[in-house]
Amino acid sequence: MDIATIVGVILGLIVIIGAIAVGAGAEMFFNLPSLAITIGGMLCATLIHFSLPQFLGIFSVIKKTIVTEIPSQSELIQKMVNYAAINRRDGALALEQEIGKIDDLFFIKGLQMLVDGQDHDDIRELMSLEVQYLQERHTSGKKILEFMGAAAPSFGMIGTLIGLIQMLSNLDDPSGLGAGMATALVTTFYGAFSANLIFIPLAGKLGIYSKAESTAMEMITEGVCAIARGENPSVVREKMQVFVSQGRREEVKANI
Amino acid sequence: MDIATIVGVILGLIVIIGAIAVGAGAEMFFNLPSLAITIGGMLCATLIHFSLPQFLGIFSVIKKTIVTEIPSQSELIQKMVNYAAINRRDGALALEQEIGKIDDLFFIKGLQMLVDGQDHDDIRELMSLEVQYLQERHTSGKKILEFMGAAAPSFGMIGTLIGLIQMLSNLDDPSGLGAGMATALVTTFYGAFSANLIFIPLAGKLGIYSKAESTAMEMITEGVCAIARGENPSVVREKMQVFVSQGRREEVKANI
Amino acid sequence: MDIATIVGVILGLIVIIGAIAVGAGAEMFFNLPSLAITIGGMLCATLIHFSLPQFLGIFSVIKKTIVTEIPSQSELIQKMVNYAAINRRDGALALEQEIGKIDDLFFIKGLQMLVDGQDHDDIRELMSLEVQYLQERHTSGKKILEFMGAAAPSFGMIGTLIGLIQMLSNLDDPSGLGAGMATALVTTFYGAFSANLIFIPLAGKLGIYSKAESTAMEMITEGVCAIARGENPSVVREKMQVFVSQGRREEVKANI
Amino acid sequence: MDIATIVGVILGLIVIIGAIAVGAGAEMFFNLPSLAITIGGMLCATLIHFSLPQFLGIFSVIKKTIVTEIPSQSELIQKMVNYAAINRRDGALALEQEIGKIDDLFFIKGLQMLVDGQDHDDIRELMSLEVQYLQERHTSGKKILEFMGAAAPSFGMIGTLIGLIQMLSNLDDPSGLGAGMATALVTTFYGAFSANLIFIPLAGKLGIYSKAESTAMEMITEGVCAIARGENPSVVREKMQVFVSQGRREEVKANI
Amino acid sequence: MDIATIVGVILGLIVIIGAIAVGAGAEMFFNLPSLAITIGGMLCATLIHFSLPQFLGIFSVIKKTIVTEIPSQSELIQKMVNYAAINRRDGALALEQEIGKIDDLFFIKGLQMLVDGQDHDDIRELMSLEVQYLQERHTSGKKILEFMGAAAPSFGMIGTLIGLIQMLSNLDDPSGLGAGMATALVTTFYGAFSANLIFIPLAGKLGIYSKAESTAMEMITEGVCAIARGENPSVVREKMQVFVSQGRREEVKANI
Repeated sequence: MDIATIVGVILGLIVIIGAIAVGAGAEMFFNLPSLAITIGGMLCATLIHFSLPQFLGIFSVIKKTIVTEIPSQSELIQKMVNYAAINRRDGALALEQEIGKIDDLFFIKGLQMLVDGQDHDDIRELMSLEVQYLQERHTSGKKILEFMGAAAPSFGMIGTLIGLIQMLSNLDDPSGLGAGMATALVTTFYGAFSANLIFIPLAGKLGIYSKAESTAMEMITEGVCAIARGENPSVVREKMQVFVSQGRREEVKANI
Repeated sequence: MDIATIVGVILGLIVIIGAIAVGAGAEMFFNLPSLAITIGGMLCATLIHFSLPQFLGIFSVIKKTIVTEIPSQSELIQKMVNYAAINRRDGALALEQEIGKIDDLFFIKGLQMLVDGQDHDDIRELMSLEVQYLQERHTSGKKILEFMGAAAPSFGMIGTLIGLIQMLSNLDDPSGLGAGMATALVTTFYGAFSANLIFIPLAGKLGIYSKAESTAMEMITEGVCAIARGENPSVVREKMQVFVSQGRREEVKANI
Repeated sequence: MDIATIVGVILGLIVIIGAIAVGAGAEMFFNLPSLAITIGGMLCATLIHFSLPQFLGIFSVIKKTIVTEIPSQSELIQKMVNYAAINRRDGALALEQEIGKIDDLFFIKGLQMLVDGQDHDDIRELMSLEVQYLQERHTSGKKILEFMGAAAPSFGMIGTLIGLIQMLSNLDDPSGLGAGMATALVTTFYGAFSANLIFIPLAGKLGIYSKAESTAMEMITEGVCAIARGENPSVVREKMQVFVSQGRREEVKANI
Repeated sequence: MDIATIVGVILGLIVIIGAIAVGAGAEMFFNLPSLAITIGGMLCATLIHFSLPQFLGIFSVIKKTIVTEIPSQSELIQKMVNYAAINRRDGALALEQEIGKIDDLFFIKGLQMLVDGQDHDDIRELMSLEVQYLQERHTSGKKILEFMGAAAPSFGMIGTLIGLIQMLSNLDDPSGLGAGMATALVTTFYGAFSANLIFIPLAGKLGIYSKAESTAMEMITEGVCAIARGENPSVVREKMQVFVSQGRREEVKANI
Repeated sequence: MDIATIVGVILGLIVIIGAIAVGAGAEMFFNLPSLAITIGGMLCATLIHFSLPQFLGIFSVIKKTIVTEIPSQSELIQKMVNYAAINRRDGALALEQEIGKIDDLFFIKGLQMLVDGQDHDDIRELMSLEVQYLQERHTSGKKILEFMGAAAPSFGMIGTLIGLIQMLSNLDDPSGLGAGMATALVTTFYGAFSANLIFIPLAGKLGIYSKAESTAMEMITEGVCAIARGENPSVVREKMQVFVSQGRREEVKANI
């Protein structure tokens, strides 16, 4: 569960809503027509830009990012070192039992190819293609959020322009000037706020999650190919630890 | 038929025109000279930037995007798996009959090369060149729309500057100040509105469509080359399913 | 002759000057000091940025773009298919006669290497180097225009700042406020107008022209290398038609 | 110890705080709610964008940049030239003693592979992978600071919008207009100031430090591989001096 | 000596200072505190961003760009054609005499490798590495100027914010409003002016100079490698002339 995202959203909402609440004119900030222009216009632009499946899929992508857990790097290395030991001691077929104990489809695919006795070049080729295309599919969700993060302020500005034109064309009553300008600015506020607290940072979180997932897949690929070449557990650990920052490398030994 | 685009445009127009209609000064928003400066200036800049054929071709490109359908990925895989089975059972020449049943020129080209008995390296080389140059030709339409999406707001701003200078040089009658400023802002509104609801999202839709089309072409290339190497239907399916997201892969078998 | 550019510039000037003429205060728009700051400052910055030869060369580059014609793609393919037929029928030396009939230096160079009997790998290497370096030299002209398109608005803004500071420091006579602000805004207008109607679109046109020229050179390279490999006319046509969009491919045969 | 960073921060704070102090209304600049919106909103957005470990790690990354020293290039070359001489005179095993005299983990790893008698291609492959992944891990810290440098001004602007809307909705007392606008502008000031004096330059310093560190690692890789190939000390010096600017190359000889 | 840069700076200063002098309120433009905030703040940010050696080195880099002359391309080709002729007539050792007649360290290095009888692949490898790393070192100076060109306007805007806040918090005397706003705008003026006339164009000039220098080095590399392969003078001229634009190629013959 990704605590950082949830805490960030809640704290951010508290800060902004708090600033609104303590000042005057708080009621100006809750304006349905302004919300319709800003968020409605943004959603329409997003619908035009992206395909319907991509658009509808955005919520499940965000949910997956907040809920799913990437296995820790040391956990992956420990598992792979064990498999290397099992492979050396009992042969590749013995790894068939281990397959049932993992959840990750990609890891299972790699082990299955080891059990089937495939050549390490073929394994690397197919697993790398898989990593490459996962990255392409993840990028789509990130792009939708980045587009929303640009479109929301743009439609906020369009709303402000509409408001200003309406207000300036009716300057008979100068006492309404302030309120008119305040209303006109609310759409720009909605746009800037939703973009900078929600859309842009969420796009970034999707990117971080995607990178962590493909690093894990690259580590699995390195490990499986090393086992396919018959390397011993410490070489397997070496090759996978290149991905781990210097200060966090541990002397991992097989514990089967 | 791409519903998302049409729905997005209609809903977006409803939201914006609704916001204009419910407020005061709606008549200010329908200003022919302002339209001439913003859209007219943008079209002139586009004519200077691009070649005449590209400029005139933009409407057919947009229409093609909204109307054409990319064959679904599962449909492609099913067809290719069938062809692999036919190839194994009856030989490549039997695929000649299948050519008449498809519409897609690229798919036909691939099958024809199989029937002609070409080597899988030659097939991959020519088909990949074809994909590469299709992508280059698609990009041109996208670039025109992106340019329009940048030029419209720029000319909107030029129109506003002209309006402000005209208004400020004639400040004798301060009661006309509001109306003068409102008129000056209308061109900026036209620019921002056309760019953010139409041009920029349509450019994005063109890009999405182009990507879907080249992914389909890459799948066809993988499939045809696999058949040329004599692979059996399940390997053909495996190679093509790399392009399909994990959750939507089906156990496709030949149904000839 | 590139009609699109000329029509675009003339129509654009009509629209903008029209908008100025029909409104009040048209005389404010013709301000020599403002022109000096905006265009003069931009030219000085361009002189600092680029080398003197590049700067002086910009006019001939623009002229070349508007005047020169890129041979049509079908014309190129027809010629190359004929040369392939001549080569097959009479041998490479027979192509020596054809050299005198073409203008294009690059095409002549390719034919000369065929007549000299050079190997197709050497031909591809030298012709590709030539294409690469032509692209680099073309980019220089485009970069100058893009820089002007960024510098003009910047100096326009500097001029407006100067005008505002001068006007605000002398607020004794409030009736001059409007005229003072109008004058201050004229430089920003000059900058935005020259950048968005002239410099930025012309830079784009240079890029389009440059791309068309290198596509033609790549087609010539493909064709000449195919002839050097002794391919027959229809293969030569195939290899060159990859560059032509699907809808415009013709069944070109030799007509010698 | 990186003096430049510390001096720059201190002088910058003096200049800005000085400008605030000498003018009127200095007390307006110390506004806790404004600080909460700008810095607080920015921190929340950063928490949503990045993972918790990355976010918490930013302080140690900054500290490491200011405190750590990259060994000078001439120091590295001198050491490597000596090792080349030792290798030639006494053989690779003699380098085992030198390992204890160095701190740098990467240099130690390289020497260890020499002592173990590994092939120069394997050494280059593993050391290059190491450099590549160090660069990827360094980039993360830089990206966090760059994001903060964009988010701070954005939240400053959101704060200003909130302040303006609150002020404009309460225009009953025109004497409070100035103070209200001043307060609204303070958040934009905080955002611009923190971004332009702290976050953006610090991100740049991280990049410079990272580049210096990987250049040092590339020099070590070149040197170690040269020794593994049995090259003599002057060739080792030549290969490493490619990284040193022409004017600062010295005639380094072994001094063992 | 690079006339263009010097003329551009002088003319630009004349235009801008002229515009200031002919208007009212010229004395407002000479404001030391404003200069301190804008230029001082920019220098502090630059000191934080870059390393101290890079920062101190910026003046010598700028001076080298304005003063140094890149040998003309035809001069380089003439020399290399002569050396090719000498090599063919008298052998590589005869080139030893020519080394004393050149200034350029890179050219000398190439000739020395010819005299030493090194293989053309080794020569190309070492010379290309040299070119690559020269480009990396040149980029540093350009990046500092580009950063200054972004930081100056940013600190100008910070200064304007400080001025506006100070002025708005003290609106008791409305007659000082104009002068207060004028003073606040002066820092933005300093920032925009220094960035657009000095820093950004100078960064561009550094880039142009750097490109000309590496093109010269690539020509020298091509020429030296051709001589090492024993090519005759006209082939050497051909290979070097790829870098020269079509219209300026001369029929260069050896004149030894």
